[in-house]
Amino acid sequence: MVMPQNLLEKTLNKQVAIKLKDGRSMEGKLVGYDEYMNMVLEGTEEETKEEKRRLGTVILRGNNVVSISPKM
Amino acid sequence: MVMPQNLLEKTLNKQVAIKLKDGRSMEGKLVGYDEYMNMVLEGTEEETKEEKRRLGTVILRGNNVVSISPKM
Amino acid sequence: MVMPQNLLEKTLNKQVAIKLKDGRSMEGKLVGYDEYMNMVLEGTEEETKEEKRRLGTVILRGNNVVSISPKM
Amino acid sequence: MVMPQNLLEKTLNKQVAIKLKDGRSMEGKLVGYDEYMNMVLEGTEEETKEEKRRLGTVILRGNNVVSISPKM
Amino acid sequence: MVMPQNLLEKTLNKQVAIKLKDGRSMEGKLVGYDEYMNMVLEGTEEETKEEKRRLGTVILRGNNVVSISPKM
Amino acid sequence: MVMPQNLLEKTLNKQVAIKLKDGRSMEGKLVGYDEYMNMVLEGTEEETKEEKRRLGTVILRGNNVVSISPKM
Amino acid sequence: MVMPQNLLEKTLNKQVAIKLKDGRSMEGKLVGYDEYMNMVLEGTEEETKEEKRRLGTVILRGNNVVSISPKM
Repeated sequence: MVMPQNLLEKTLNKQVAIKLKDGRSMEGKLVGYDEYMNMVLEGTEEETKEEKRRLGTVILRGNNVVSISPKM
Repeated sequence: MVMPQNLLEKTLNKQVAIKLKDGRSMEGKLVGYDEYMNMVLEGTEEETKEEKRRLGTVILRGNNVVSISPKM
Repeated sequence: MVMPQNLLEKTLNKQVAIKLKDGRSMEGKLVGYDEYMNMVLEGTEEETKEEKRRLGTVILRGNNVVSISPKM
Repeated sequence: MVMPQNLLEKTLNKQVAIKLKDGRSMEGKLVGYDEYMNMVLEGTEEETKEEKRRLGTVILRGNNVVSISPKM
Repeated sequence: MVMPQNLLEKTLNKQVAIKLKDGRSMEGKLVGYDEYMNMVLEGTEEETKEEKRRLGTVILRGNNVVSISPKM
Repeated sequence: MVMPQNLLEKTLNKQVAIKLKDGRSMEGKLVGYDEYMNMVLEGTEEETKEEKRRLGTVILRGNNVVSISPKM
Repeated sequence: MVMPQNLLEKTLNKQVAIKLKDGRSMEGKLVGYDEYMNMVLEGTEEETKEEKRRLGTVILRGNNVVSISPKM
């Protein structure tokens, strides 16, 4: 069995694609997270329906995250 | 009586169809979950009203899940 | 007094109609539930404004359930 | 002082009108409730903007209830 | 300092105007409340954008209340 | 470091501008608050996109507050 | 590993860009926060789709925050 938290740990320092509740998508390197699934991404690129832009380092609140896809 | 958590356990390594609060549907192999119904899917395909695409491995946050249908 | 949890228990293995927050309706045999009102339905039929379809066995997250009507 | 839970108790086996978060209204006899304000109604009639229909016995999730009006 | 709960206590048996999350406004005499800010109003009048109507006694769920204005 | 609760304390009896989740803005004198950021305002003026009106004393539920700007 | 709370601490007294659930963006100097990710910003500028304006000092409720980007 692959526990969600274990997969996050294995994904550290790898690229992830994240979907947020407000419809935004983000891609970046996962460099940290906590037990609430708050996450820290580096080299983040944000994509909405209208635009794409570089955000650099971002803290994401876990309660706004819908899905996390490791890019392996 | 079939407890929801017991059915999840019996569904491990089987295909499931999942509906999310934001209207997206996902299908994939359920390879893990935790007590918050956060789940890990492999070979995931996402389907919205507009598009269908391969996501590979995905962590889904339990609080965004509406329903889970085991494909047995 | 009819406690909600007691009525659920008496409804086990009977047909129920369920309304979800996202506007979907589901009918099926209630075969299980837990203290969060997560439920397991069998022989489930889902109905939205646009379509009706068979889902088979479904786990429903309690926090998305609005109302449960036992079909007695 | 009239505590909300005490008023519910006094309303047992009386008619109530209930408003839900999703805009639906329901009327029926309140036959039970728990500490989360989950409620059981009998002889329930549901009314939305478009339609009115008989639901019989219904369990309502407390976190979707906006207001409860005893019909005394 | 005026604690919110203390102001509620001082407002007992006085008229209040209440705004709910669903856009409705209610006016009535505050006759009770609990620690979740569930409230009991008497002689309640409800006002939406379209209509105004008498509701009599009403239990309001605290988590749907946005603001409470004592009419002093 | 300026803790949010400390800033609230320093803002007591001063004017604040508050944004609520439902899009309303309010200005008034902050005369009290509790640990849930429920607040009591006096001399409150409410502003929506359509109108502006005097509300006098208002209790605001903390979970509907988005931002608080002390007017110093 | 970069814990979200540690990154917040390192960002104290630096500029941050914050996205809120209601679609607003804010930029300002982060001068404080608590364990709920409530934050205090100074010299805050708010930007919505329609307008841009100076807010000065602002307390932001953590549960409305979607993402935080340190400007380093």
